Amino acid sequence: MEGLGRLPKVVAFGGGHGLSASLTALRRVTDHLTAVVTVADDGGSSGRLRRELGCLPPGDLRMALAALCSDDQEGRTWASVLQSRFTGEGTLAGHAIGNLLIAGLWQQLGDPVAGLDMVADLLRTRGRVLPMSSIPLEIEADVLGLDATTPDELSTLRGQATIASSAGTVQAVRLIPQGPPACREVIEAVMDADSVVLGPGSWFTSVIPHLLVPDLARAITTTSARRVLVLNIAPADETDGFTASRHIELLAEHAPNLRLDVVIADDGFAGSDIHLERYAASLGARLVVADIGVRGGSPRHDTNRLASVFSEVLAL
Amino acid sequence: MEGLGRLPKVVAFGGGHGLSASLTALRRVTDHLTAVVTVADDGGSSGRLRRELGCLPPGDLRMALAALCSDDQEGRTWASVLQSRFTGEGTLAGHAIGNLLIAGLWQQLGDPVAGLDMVADLLRTRGRVLPMSSIPLEIEADVLGLDATTPDELSTLRGQATIASSAGTVQAVRLIPQGPPACREVIEAVMDADSVVLGPGSWFTSVIPHLLVPDLARAITTTSARRVLVLNIAPADETDGFTASRHIELLAEHAPNLRLDVVIADDGFAGSDIHLERYAASLGARLVVADIGVRGGSPRHDTNRLASVFSEVLAL
Repeated sequence: MEGLGRLPKVVAFGGGHGLSASLTALRRVTDHLTAVVTVADDGGSSGRLRRELGCLPPGDLRMALAALCSDDQEGRTWASVLQSRFTGEGTLAGHAIGNLLIAGLWQQLGDPVAGLDMVADLLRTRGRVLPMSSIPLEIEADVLGLDATTPDELSTLRGQATIASSAGTVQAVRLIPQGPPACREVIEAVMDADSVVLGPGSWFTSVIPHLLVPDLARAITTTSARRVLVLNIAPADETDGFTASRHIELLAEHAPNLRLDVVIADDGFAGSDIHLERYAASLGARLVVADIGVRGGSPRHDTNRLASVFSEVLAL
Repeated sequence: MEGLGRLPKVVAFGGGHGLSASLTALRRVTDHLTAVVTVADDGGSSGRLRRELGCLPPGDLRMALAALCSDDQEGRTWASVLQSRFTGEGTLAGHAIGNLLIAGLWQQLGDPVAGLDMVADLLRTRGRVLPMSSIPLEIEADVLGLDATTPDELSTLRGQATIASSAGTVQAVRLIPQGPPACREVIEAVMDADSVVLGPGSWFTSVIPHLLVPDLARAITTTSARRVLVLNIAPADETDGFTASRHIELLAEHAPNLRLDVVIADDGFAGSDIHLERYAASLGARLVVADIGVRGGSPRHDTNRLASVFSEVLAL
């Protein structure tokens, strides 16, 4: 965050680890951050809480809050506590402590955004974390080749956890209920932003869902903000075998009106895809290719190098 | 908190609703408050948590923290959230949200006092809340007449919840394990205090247990602080039918070296007991009788009138 000029107002869309990665880099570029989180998770602690309490799944919201926590000792201690999980074999085992706190705040306050803002205050976060919709959602997917004996048969799968671990090839996803309400504060943030950032993350369950909330898709397509897409470092479970171009094409299939200004891709993933620049251009975007992957280990973004690309791409 | 002089340093002992009542009054008299809480609760949400996680029972600690929360909107909102309980029929139902947060902090930090201090920071409490011992305890009681057909037979009951609801007459209580370690920070606070306040509260399970922790009993009997006992407004379940004098006698039976400086009693309970002044004097105490009960409803202390008595009795 160099210089004396105004810092850009940025809204980042995603869920889970992908959003954490973009937030960890974005917080180095600006203080004016809004993280928007999918609310269709139905696995693990979040899944248990939404089934028991009927609340939004808190897990990805908690992770985003932790990614934005204050840099001081107190902020980091609270973040590590909220991220930690109860151990053992009992009824609490596996629940993240932050999930229970967020669910408790929601029950008591009756307002998801008010509860998240209280946790943000507790962590003195750099920025705000919001749910993409104010109601819990499910994801339904059309999946090809679920059964190896009938590879051309299209099946319907329901539930984020089920879809993410499916052996078939996902063709398309829908939200249930269809056309859910957007979170009002998200729309305001998108319309007021200098840039909006989509991805990285699980393509079908963390990135595309934002484009399936009608008011949110409309805000993303009509805002005067710069629209930035961050591709994953490599295809993940949900998009195993998909090229980088196919990732962009999938966005267009789910959101026909979507235009982009910038597509950021790692040189490894992009280098093997001769069509990528053309696919980016077809949505109006220039392609920025850079070495942004962590060297060795699992495919994920290197915070410093992603932040460096962001600071150039998001500059006012 | 009038005047310009130094405010008294006060340590208040108890557990549950009785301690909340004294803290709510004491916070009007001083900022230098340490609340010390019994850790033998085995009922409700606290009982479930100590059985599942092996931690201290957090419930009475949570109540004391809430009683000391900051007077501003944020402090009061957090206190009401931590005091609220999950509803419904699931595995979380009945758990106070603050209990889960405290238990989570303990698991993550491995230090009961550090976890409580973090919640105190969150609530910006007026004062500090500490456990009387750093290990979870059980209470065992000798009870007379548990079986109506053999009224002279002495039985042994174990567990705070069981003892508190017993139909028999409690004669004596013990801690299990016997002679548990005191919390170091409590000893320091007692030795540094201007006054220590015992009661009100469940006599056998919230007041007397503090005197059964050897290092704590020694600190209470040897500190240069003024020793103040607050009697209950009326006998409660555990002491049904006991006179005010018998309440004092029970303390002496459990802590033979105990000396007191002041005994505070409500005029209703004290007025019917012609021996009370003599029993107080036998421990070295002057008796202060005042109208401190809430008029009508359940027997409990009126905050304003108890605070008024405290401000006189604790004055430096």
